[in-house]
Amino acid sequence: MKIYMAGPEVFLPDAKAVLWRKSEMVKSFGFQPMAPGDNIVDIVGTPFQRGLTINQFDEELMDQSDAIIANLTPFRGIGADPGTCYELGYMCARGKRVYGYTNDVRSHFARLIDLYDGKIEEAGDGRKYGSDGLALEDLDMPDNLMLVGGIKRRGGTVVVHDAPADIYYSDLTAFEECLRLLKES
Amino acid sequence: MKIYMAGPEVFLPDAKAVLWRKSEMVKSFGFQPMAPGDNIVDIVGTPFQRGLTINQFDEELMDQSDAIIANLTPFRGIGADPGTCYELGYMCARGKRVYGYTNDVRSHFARLIDLYDGKIEEAGDGRKYGSDGLALEDLDMPDNLMLVGGIKRRGGTVVVHDAPADIYYSDLTAFEECLRLLKES
Repeated sequence: MKIYMAGPEVFLPDAKAVLWRKSEMVKSFGFQPMAPGDNIVDIVGTPFQRGLTINQFDEELMDQSDAIIANLTPFRGIGADPGTCYELGYMCARGKRVYGYTNDVRSHFARLIDLYDGKIEEAGDGRKYGSDGLALEDLDMPDNLMLVGGIKRRGGTVVVHDAPADIYYSDLTAFEECLRLLKES
Repeated sequence: MKIYMAGPEVFLPDAKAVLWRKSEMVKSFGFQPMAPGDNIVDIVGTPFQRGLTINQFDEELMDQSDAIIANLTPFRGIGADPGTCYELGYMCARGKRVYGYTNDVRSHFARLIDLYDGKIEEAGDGRKYGSDGLALEDLDMPDNLMLVGGIKRRGGTVVVHDAPADIYYSDLTAFEECLRLLKES
């Protein structure tokens, strides 16, 4: 079984080392790791063209994979990395096996409360709003309902782990748990 | 042609009115609008169950649609709404026609410079890093390469428009341009 390893760790200074550790862990379960091409694809053409090439590389890798494990740890804000969200949706639509994990134990709603410094109001329509007037999802989920729903409705799991701050993106405890769940199922 | 209207406008206080305006505009082009279920699906069961129900509703709607127009205007951070990113990836994988728009004219990289208050450094590996040590995409694209690459490689367009702040999410100028491009193609 080939496993596509999605996540914002491609943006770490030691991205290659982290993906190497993930790959070794995937192999230790008897699976084959598929790592995104951000740090592999050669720089050819304009920056824009390079972006298209990496997109094509990653989509072809996903097409060849049997499963995705998506690192949904919040990235530059309160939600998962947009590229990872795209890849999760892509794999759900392709009918692949889907798992996710986050190294942040706060729920999506708890992170929203932090974002708005607790300044949240309930309106007449029954929805809760932040101080900027935008409605909040309060669904007892670790992230946006499309991400969590897409995984859960396909029999997958979103593993939640409380990682130390200095390894917020690279802690592999929850990733390993996803591998264990894939192996058992 | 049925068009799925993805975007963070579902979180606006006047979400129903904005989606009504989008629907009318879609019809004026001779297309059929498909609006996400966030504000339509009945509240049944636990909040978590409700999240799953909306996910299922939206995925079924996407399966019935021929195209997606994704509002990629930055949401609670520098990138597109995670739910919208999931839906865009989903539709790309399903082989549907894909278009996107953003009401923010800044490039993804320009928004990153703003996020880090200009404190960006180029490292020995040739990549640029923010003050938190995370690498930056500098690809002359309006958002993450998976989103833009997924659209561009399938013949779609990401329309960029400079919307006034008070209608940052609800300005439909760029949405209308996407409809025009879909009609012409």
